[in-house]
Amino acid sequence: MTAVETDLTPLLDEIEAEARKSIGRGKVADYIPALARISPERFGMAVCGVDGSEYVAGDADICFSIQSISKVFTLELALKIVGSNALWKRVGREPSGNAFNSLVQLESEQGLPRNPFINAGALVVTDAITARTVSPVLQLLGSVRRCAARQDIYIDEEVAHSEADHGHRNAAIAHLLKSQGNLVAPVEDVLSVYYRQCAIAMTCRDLARAFLPLASGGQQPITGEKLMTPLRAKRINSLLLTCGLYDGVGNFAFRVGIPAKSGVGGGIAAVIPGKYAICVWSPELDELGNSLAGTRALELFARKTKLSIF
Amino acid sequence: MTAVETDLTPLLDEIEAEARKSIGRGKVADYIPALARISPERFGMAVCGVDGSEYVAGDADICFSIQSISKVFTLELALKIVGSNALWKRVGREPSGNAFNSLVQLESEQGLPRNPFINAGALVVTDAITARTVSPVLQLLGSVRRCAARQDIYIDEEVAHSEADHGHRNAAIAHLLKSQGNLVAPVEDVLSVYYRQCAIAMTCRDLARAFLPLASGGQQPITGEKLMTPLRAKRINSLLLTCGLYDGVGNFAFRVGIPAKSGVGGGIAAVIPGKYAICVWSPELDELGNSLAGTRALELFARKTKLSIF
Amino acid sequence: MTAVETDLTPLLDEIEAEARKSIGRGKVADYIPALARISPERFGMAVCGVDGSEYVAGDADICFSIQSISKVFTLELALKIVGSNALWKRVGREPSGNAFNSLVQLESEQGLPRNPFINAGALVVTDAITARTVSPVLQLLGSVRRCAARQDIYIDEEVAHSEADHGHRNAAIAHLLKSQGNLVAPVEDVLSVYYRQCAIAMTCRDLARAFLPLASGGQQPITGEKLMTPLRAKRINSLLLTCGLYDGVGNFAFRVGIPAKSGVGGGIAAVIPGKYAICVWSPELDELGNSLAGTRALELFARKTKLSIF
Amino acid sequence: MTAVETDLTPLLDEIEAEARKSIGRGKVADYIPALARISPERFGMAVCGVDGSEYVAGDADICFSIQSISKVFTLELALKIVGSNALWKRVGREPSGNAFNSLVQLESEQGLPRNPFINAGALVVTDAITARTVSPVLQLLGSVRRCAARQDIYIDEEVAHSEADHGHRNAAIAHLLKSQGNLVAPVEDVLSVYYRQCAIAMTCRDLARAFLPLASGGQQPITGEKLMTPLRAKRINSLLLTCGLYDGVGNFAFRVGIPAKSGVGGGIAAVIPGKYAICVWSPELDELGNSLAGTRALELFARKTKLSIF
Repeated sequence: MTAVETDLTPLLDEIEAEARKSIGRGKVADYIPALARISPERFGMAVCGVDGSEYVAGDADICFSIQSISKVFTLELALKIVGSNALWKRVGREPSGNAFNSLVQLESEQGLPRNPFINAGALVVTDAITARTVSPVLQLLGSVRRCAARQDIYIDEEVAHSEADHGHRNAAIAHLLKSQGNLVAPVEDVLSVYYRQCAIAMTCRDLARAFLPLASGGQQPITGEKLMTPLRAKRINSLLLTCGLYDGVGNFAFRVGIPAKSGVGGGIAAVIPGKYAICVWSPELDELGNSLAGTRALELFARKTKLSIF
Repeated sequence: MTAVETDLTPLLDEIEAEARKSIGRGKVADYIPALARISPERFGMAVCGVDGSEYVAGDADICFSIQSISKVFTLELALKIVGSNALWKRVGREPSGNAFNSLVQLESEQGLPRNPFINAGALVVTDAITARTVSPVLQLLGSVRRCAARQDIYIDEEVAHSEADHGHRNAAIAHLLKSQGNLVAPVEDVLSVYYRQCAIAMTCRDLARAFLPLASGGQQPITGEKLMTPLRAKRINSLLLTCGLYDGVGNFAFRVGIPAKSGVGGGIAAVIPGKYAICVWSPELDELGNSLAGTRALELFARKTKLSIF
Repeated sequence: MTAVETDLTPLLDEIEAEARKSIGRGKVADYIPALARISPERFGMAVCGVDGSEYVAGDADICFSIQSISKVFTLELALKIVGSNALWKRVGREPSGNAFNSLVQLESEQGLPRNPFINAGALVVTDAITARTVSPVLQLLGSVRRCAARQDIYIDEEVAHSEADHGHRNAAIAHLLKSQGNLVAPVEDVLSVYYRQCAIAMTCRDLARAFLPLASGGQQPITGEKLMTPLRAKRINSLLLTCGLYDGVGNFAFRVGIPAKSGVGGGIAAVIPGKYAICVWSPELDELGNSLAGTRALELFARKTKLSIF
Repeated sequence: MTAVETDLTPLLDEIEAEARKSIGRGKVADYIPALARISPERFGMAVCGVDGSEYVAGDADICFSIQSISKVFTLELALKIVGSNALWKRVGREPSGNAFNSLVQLESEQGLPRNPFINAGALVVTDAITARTVSPVLQLLGSVRRCAARQDIYIDEEVAHSEADHGHRNAAIAHLLKSQGNLVAPVEDVLSVYYRQCAIAMTCRDLARAFLPLASGGQQPITGEKLMTPLRAKRINSLLLTCGLYDGVGNFAFRVGIPAKSGVGGGIAAVIPGKYAICVWSPELDELGNSLAGTRALELFARKTKLSIF
């Protein structure tokens, strides 16, 4: 794990200028008020090197709602708590070819969600934590804080409440999973944890740091803490690549070529194994729910640095 | 509406003997304990003529859980309360070609259930009543009592509680409808009314009487009360024929040729327009959820009396 | 089978005037030139009584392409040739809840078409004839002529050729059926018979006559010939009601309440058991593929005569 | 592009011994006789380095039917002939989440196949070549020969004929595409080219060589010929990873972590960008259609060399 020497600051500034041109062509998530009122003009980017270097541009230190990016942290925690064998019996590892919140596939595949990053799969992962821990939310927060090497990461309770009020589709998925025998804890408990995990607030810098262990074989370079085995880091990266961007994974791999996870808050966290963890944030989304300027910024980064896994 | 003179008692006895031969080949509904413990040996049949005549065989005066047959009564009541135009904007009138409790079709048709007799459609109908009345369950009970010309029809609260405990699939459907904007009352309220309507207990004689208005142009011959217009009665009969037997309507029309509605409690209530209302009860179900001996009994009745709508 | 005395001519004139008001709101089938050039102004209606009476209005004696109405004749012939047991093993009797030419359901139900009136089912029925007779088209024509009591019914070969040229979706269905093991004759042979059966040309009067046996217990009243048993006639009527109008059967039963079969040529042939066979023709179709003015005319006929099976 | 020095022969022998233990647990493709009679005991493996080094084990020099692996070569050729922009308008780049030969998704997504490696997408790619070249098969063979740096690669005409005889499902897909307007050349022509491309016979060594340009930025190291740009090579690798193993891409990425394409002949060709192209062959398939021992061998190779893209 050698140093990554170059100063990326000028490159990030250039990328920001270019990627901002996409702003105005997408749509900020508006299903809850707390997300709808975020300014579409926000753009932040942070790149953390496995050598401990950090480069930022724009609004890289402003908190936003990480939403589905949290599914990576719950997956890491659930794998730690219940183990790989137990968890992969309850959720698959295949891209879905469907909308992230679809019930169709879940019904036809009889309760085995296709992967841990669609909502059905994420609810099963959250259930694995909820059913086995006394304070699942605290435990998750602790885990995220260790990944990010920062102690003050918090949950935006207003967002969590809004999610619950508008969460009838997630409630439908959870009840269906329960009827199919793939939810252990009470539906209400699982949903409550789920809405709070989605409402975690972090900055680009936080998220890039928190994804660093995936880039550096499981270790958090800042604290030196070993958070997972190299094999587990590799495998989570593979899941990011095949399942991390809703029904847009193929195009993202084609254009960008980097494992990543997006959220409807406009964040995308990405991993270049052995080199960098990256986070971009721009609230306007494309029609699949991925940040428009964020995707563009990562494409530019991959192209200009010639870094890609392919 | 002239008299239907013949004494049908010997015929019903003959049919009972023949239909009972099917017992042992089906499966009693076992998703809730209160249904699972009903003896599979039960068989009752009642035929009420539009002239007021009544003929019964077997366990025709023993109460059973009417389950989905209640959907006919909620439909009648909802049409009365919100009117035809308003209701048919929220639910379709086409057979579903799918399992009665499927979420797939509901998702692909964006919240407009195919018909009022699949669970999704029945929940919308129940919502129409729940959202517009102060005591929806009492109002429904009153309506059923007027149809059946009998004041002591009741709800089996043990069954209602069991339904609620095992109702995660219905909860999933209700939450999905809510997220699609086709549920007005709170999800919990609609489900509570729904589980109680399914738990209404009636005898074959009660149900045959309660279906008489559909056979006699809207009038209850026993009390003389006009419960609906002749056009509405015809139209409900058409819905029974095209949507009344889950995904078995085509075969039932082919073999029996009479509008009918079945329930997983083993009851089937049927209508021969201008002549008879019939109810059979036998708890063992075929793989589609329709009473096996009940279907056989109706087939024999249609064949032996040469009564059929075709 | 008693006489049906009233002269219906004034009623049919009144219905024509009223139904013609729908013209202009639908769309003439345009997937082949021979259908696209038919004047949307055409409207014909014929009613044949089981007593031999005949009443007509408008263009009742002009030939049009019967299209899917032919599926009733191939069904009758196939039942005669291979028998009820053999045929119903290869095709179901349930409404489809899907577009008439969908491949989805066929794939998920592994080669057993839902009913004989969707394209997949009709191809299986045509295959049953094709695989078992030397001159299937001649045999079918002979059968239609006997039903209609008229010897000069013919196939419009221009239409048949056009169908073949534009029949890639039907070819897809036939090849899929073949791969699923539910087509015996070569794909090309089945398609050739299928395109020619759809191209049979008949008038409203012809079709009403040809449906008379279904109204009169299997007998053609004009010739006195017994064409099928009363049970078979009843059963075919039940299939018309549950499967005869594509994905519009429920609404048609609700509004009209009469077994019927439609075709994209704009014809609808209907049966009032024990009384009349009816045919209407008006080329403009609704979005489901059923004649708009034709449906309206049948609705008016049912309402004004108070004839309905419900 | 520096040399990859180690002699891999002992490693490949070790992998062969270990991977052969999977033989007996899968099923040789048996839908055509020419595939069914291949011995399940066959196992071959070839690894070609971007430095020109080659290592083989087992039956690496025996020809087998490359089947769907050919889809990579037709994709490369079609991109060359019609260009990136034109081709990606007619076929998507997303994993399908469905069986490789499904018609369902094609119908619901109205003729735009999800990706070039499911059968529907491959037929569109083949059509792009067929519609624009005089001798599409010769041109394709020429292209494969250039990739593999070997002139005697041939088509097994017996296999091609068998494919055609058993190809009703592919014919169904092609006719459906034609009816949806996404096939330019006549259906028969496209199918004829398609069946012949699937019947190309190659050895493990041939295929590893032919995939070398994807590992080395577009250049064939043996001949020095530049066959595509580095960007195109990267992008094809991304498509292999997200769409190359039917409905098993997620698991393959998780376990193996290398872009690859499989065929029902039992071959899998894989790419480790910047280092190696690999081909394994073992005829027994898992339930998704991927070589069982082949997958195992690649997993062992990735684990033992610690080479993976993640």
